[in-house]
Amino acid sequence: MSYSTLEKTFHRLAQLGHAEAMLSWDQHVMMPPKGNAARSKAMAELTVLRTEILQDERLSDRFDEAEQESNLTDWQQANLREMKRSWQQTRAIPKDLVEAQSLASSECEHAWRTLRPNNDWAGFEPLLQQVFDLAGEAAAAYQDALGADRGYANAYDALMDQFDPGTTMSRVDPVFDRLKAELPGTLQQILERQSLRPTPNKPERPIAITQQDALARALMSTLGFDFDAGRLDQTVHPFSGGVPADSRITTRYDEHNVIEGLMGVIHETGHSRYETGLPKAWTSQPVGQAMGMGVHESQSLFFEMQLGRSRPFIDAIAPMVRQHLGDDPAFSADNLHALYTRVEPGLIRVNADEVTYPSHVILRYELERDIILGNASVKDIPERWNKAMSDLLGLDTRGDYRNGPMQDIHWPMGAIGYFPSYTLGALNAAQLHAALLRDVPDVAERIARLDLAPIFDWLSRNIWQQGRFNNYDDLMTQATGEVLNPDYFLDHLQSRYLSA
Amino acid sequence: MSYSTLEKTFHRLAQLGHAEAMLSWDQHVMMPPKGNAARSKAMAELTVLRTEILQDERLSDRFDEAEQESNLTDWQQANLREMKRSWQQTRAIPKDLVEAQSLASSECEHAWRTLRPNNDWAGFEPLLQQVFDLAGEAAAAYQDALGADRGYANAYDALMDQFDPGTTMSRVDPVFDRLKAELPGTLQQILERQSLRPTPNKPERPIAITQQDALARALMSTLGFDFDAGRLDQTVHPFSGGVPADSRITTRYDEHNVIEGLMGVIHETGHSRYETGLPKAWTSQPVGQAMGMGVHESQSLFFEMQLGRSRPFIDAIAPMVRQHLGDDPAFSADNLHALYTRVEPGLIRVNADEVTYPSHVILRYELERDIILGNASVKDIPERWNKAMSDLLGLDTRGDYRNGPMQDIHWPMGAIGYFPSYTLGALNAAQLHAALLRDVPDVAERIARLDLAPIFDWLSRNIWQQGRFNNYDDLMTQATGEVLNPDYFLDHLQSRYLSA
Repeated sequence: MSYSTLEKTFHRLAQLGHAEAMLSWDQHVMMPPKGNAARSKAMAELTVLRTEILQDERLSDRFDEAEQESNLTDWQQANLREMKRSWQQTRAIPKDLVEAQSLASSECEHAWRTLRPNNDWAGFEPLLQQVFDLAGEAAAAYQDALGADRGYANAYDALMDQFDPGTTMSRVDPVFDRLKAELPGTLQQILERQSLRPTPNKPERPIAITQQDALARALMSTLGFDFDAGRLDQTVHPFSGGVPADSRITTRYDEHNVIEGLMGVIHETGHSRYETGLPKAWTSQPVGQAMGMGVHESQSLFFEMQLGRSRPFIDAIAPMVRQHLGDDPAFSADNLHALYTRVEPGLIRVNADEVTYPSHVILRYELERDIILGNASVKDIPERWNKAMSDLLGLDTRGDYRNGPMQDIHWPMGAIGYFPSYTLGALNAAQLHAALLRDVPDVAERIARLDLAPIFDWLSRNIWQQGRFNNYDDLMTQATGEVLNPDYFLDHLQSRYLSA
Repeated sequence: MSYSTLEKTFHRLAQLGHAEAMLSWDQHVMMPPKGNAARSKAMAELTVLRTEILQDERLSDRFDEAEQESNLTDWQQANLREMKRSWQQTRAIPKDLVEAQSLASSECEHAWRTLRPNNDWAGFEPLLQQVFDLAGEAAAAYQDALGADRGYANAYDALMDQFDPGTTMSRVDPVFDRLKAELPGTLQQILERQSLRPTPNKPERPIAITQQDALARALMSTLGFDFDAGRLDQTVHPFSGGVPADSRITTRYDEHNVIEGLMGVIHETGHSRYETGLPKAWTSQPVGQAMGMGVHESQSLFFEMQLGRSRPFIDAIAPMVRQHLGDDPAFSADNLHALYTRVEPGLIRVNADEVTYPSHVILRYELERDIILGNASVKDIPERWNKAMSDLLGLDTRGDYRNGPMQDIHWPMGAIGYFPSYTLGALNAAQLHAALLRDVPDVAERIARLDLAPIFDWLSRNIWQQGRFNNYDDLMTQATGEVLNPDYFLDHLQSRYLSA
C-alpha cells in the first residue's frame, strides 16, 4: 500500500523528469537565444516542484511502512531501495546550500566562457574557489547524512557517490595508481612503434556536411539506433539526451575533419542504446534508470573504443564510408584503422586517444580529491597541473591555462567527483568486452559481417536490462565474474597497440 | 499578502504551462513517432498537477482575503479577477466528467482520422454523439457553477465563454443573422463582377521549398517577427505555439502551390506578434495572457486579410516575391492581387476566401448551438448541412460527408463553441482596421513603403499591451469607440470587392 503510493510519487517525478529532459534538449538544439530567460525560469520551477515532492514530510512514514511490506517482489524491493536512495539524497543538503551552489556555479560557468579564451586564470581562480568551497560544504553534508549508511570514508567519497553510486576512493586509488605506474611506459612503447610506420592520410578534400550526416545515420542504424524512437541533430557541444522512448543525440560536423565526428556519433549511440535498452516495465521508476556515470560511459566507450575502433569493425564499415564520402585514399580500411588508433599526447582531454585519456582524468581526480580533502587548494592547481602533464604525458603546459586547467566545463559548473567516471568507464568497457569474448567467441567474425545482434543481446542482458536492480559491484560481477579490474584495460592496450 | 501568494501560485501554473506548450510544440514538430506514448503520459501528468494546484482547498480563502486587500493596483485587481476566473473554471466541472470528455474526444478524433477518408458518417455519428452529449453535460455544469456570475442565458453561452470570454448568443445571433441576410447577395454581385475579368495566372513551374522558405522568412521579418525570439518550422498542419518569449509558428509548403502558403505564414505571424506583444511585466500571470480566440483570430486576420491581401501591401511585396521565387508572370503585383482576392464558393472551410468563410462558420455555429440547446440532434447534421450549403453558397453537398460535416477536427476533439471565434475575429479585424485608418490616415502610403511600424504600434497599444486588463467589450470600445459592429466587415467587403 505504502509501496504503491511511493511508486505513484516517483512516477510523477519521472514525468517531471521527462519534461525537464525535453526542455533541456530543446534549449540546446532548438531554442532561439531570447527564449533563454523564460526557459530557465520554467526549468527552475520544475526543479523546485520535484524537490517539494521529495521533501513531503509524509514520505518518511511511507518508507518505514513500505519496508515492512512482506509481499514485494525482488524488483519492487530494489526499487524501494533506489527510491529511498534518491529521497535521502535530496534531503541531505539544506535548501540554501543548493541555491548557493547553483548561483556560484552559474556565475563561474558564465565567467569561464569569456575568461577561458582570455587565458585569465587570475580572474577565474576566486570564482572556482567559491565553487570548490561550496562543494566541500555539500560533501560534508552528504557525509553527515548518508556516510554511515553508504560507507563513505571521507567527503570526496560522498561526491563521487552522487555521480557513480558505490564508487569510493579505496576502490579508485589503487586502480589509478596502477595506471599511473604502467601507462607512461606503455605510451612510450606505443609511440616508438608508431614512429616506425608512415603517418596515416587525412582526406584530401573537404567533405560536405550532408554526406557526413548520411553516413552518420547509416552507421547509427547499423548500431541499432531506431530513428522512429529517437533523433540525431547538430549542436556545437554534442550530447545525448531525451528519454528512453525518445532518445536524442547530437553531433557536430566539420567539413575539414570527418574523422573524429564519426566516432563521436558512435560514442553517443552507445549512451543512447543503454538508455533505450533499460527495462521498459520500470521506465518511470528509479530501479529502471541507468547505473552511475561510470557504467553509462562504459557503454559509449564499448561502442566507440572496443567495437568502433576495432579492426574488424573498421574493415566492415570502410565500404560504407567510401559509399557516402567518396573514394579518397584516406578511406581505405588500412588507413582508417591507422587514423582511428593513432596515439598522440596532447593538451586537451576531449581530443585524447584511449591511451593518454586516463592521464588527463587521473590528474583531475587527484587535484579535486586533494582539494576537497583539504590537502591542496585551488591556487595550487596550475603548478600541480604542469607537473602532472609533464610526468604523465611529457608535455609542457606552463602559462597555458586555457588549454590546461580551464579547458573543461566540469569544475566551473560544480561537477566535482565526476571525472573518474570517464576512466572507470573505459576500464569497465574493456572488462565487459573480455567477458563478451568468452561468451561469444566468434564475435570478430560476426563483426566482420556486421552481424552485431549477439553483441547487443549480450549487453542488453548483462547491463541494459539490469537497470539499477543490482549495485555496481554486483552488476559487474554478474556480467564479468569479478568486480572492477584494470588488467583488462591494460591488456586491451597491449593487444591493440603492441602485439602483432 | 494573499494576493501575492496567489500570484506565486499562478506563476507556478504558468511555468507548467510553458513546459506543456513546448512539449506540445515538440510533439507536433520534432518528436519521433514511438515517443508518443511516453510524451502523452508526461503531458497528462502536468495537466493533473495543474488541476491539483488549482483545486487546493486553501485557494478559496486566499481569494476571499485578496478581494479585501485595499492596496492593489488596477492591474493587480484585473489579475485577481482573471486568476479567479481561471480557478472557478477548473472547479466548475467534476473530475470524472473531464476524464470522460478526454476519453470520448480521444476516441472520436482517433477514429475520425480513418473514418473521414472513408466518408463513413454512419461510423462517425455515434462517436460524435457521445462527444456532444458530454459537452452538453459540461455546459450544464458550467452554467450551474458560473452562469449567475457571468450572465449565461443558456448552456451554449457557457461553452462559448470557455474559448471567447464574454461572447454570448444574444450578441452573436443578431450579428450572424445580419451576415446571413447580406452575404449571399454580396457574394452573387462579387462573382458576377469577377466573371468579367480574366482568371489570374498560377505560377508556371513548381517552386522549390527552399525558395519559398526564404521568402516566408523575409516576409515574416518585414512583419516584425524576431527570429532571435521565435522559430518557423514545417508541419502538415500549421499552427502557432510556444510562449511569448519564444514564439514558434509552423507552415506547410507545396511546390505546386506557393500562393496559399504565403498567406498562411502571414496569418500565423499575426498570432505570434499578439503573443509576443503581450505585456512582459505580466507574462506569467492570467492578466498578461491573450484575450479569447475571437481577439486572437482578429490579429491573424488583421495580418492576413486587412493588411496581407490589401493592394498596397501586395504592390510593396511583389518585388520581394519575384526576388525569391523568380520572374514568373504570376508574380506581377496585378496578378498577385487578383489571386489573393479571388472569391470562389467551395466545400472546405480552411480553403475559403474571406467572403464565403462566414457562411461556413455560421452553418457550424447554428448546428452546434441547436444541438447543445436540444433543438437539433447529431443525426440531423447531414441534412441541415446540405440545406445550409445550398442556401448560403449554392453548393450541393449531399452524400459528401468527408468534405462536409466530417472535414474539421473541432467537433471530434470536443471543441464545441469554438467556431464562432473565426468569424468574430474577421469582424473584429475589420473594425480595428477602420479605427486604425481614423488614427493613422496615411496608412496606405506607409504600407506602400513597408513602413509598418505605425500599424504595429497601434495594434500594440490598443490590443497586445492590453492583455486581459479589460473585458472584450471594453477592449473593443477603447480601441474602436464601440463594441462589435458587423458594418465594418461588410463595408470592407464592399470596398475591396465591389468598388472602383
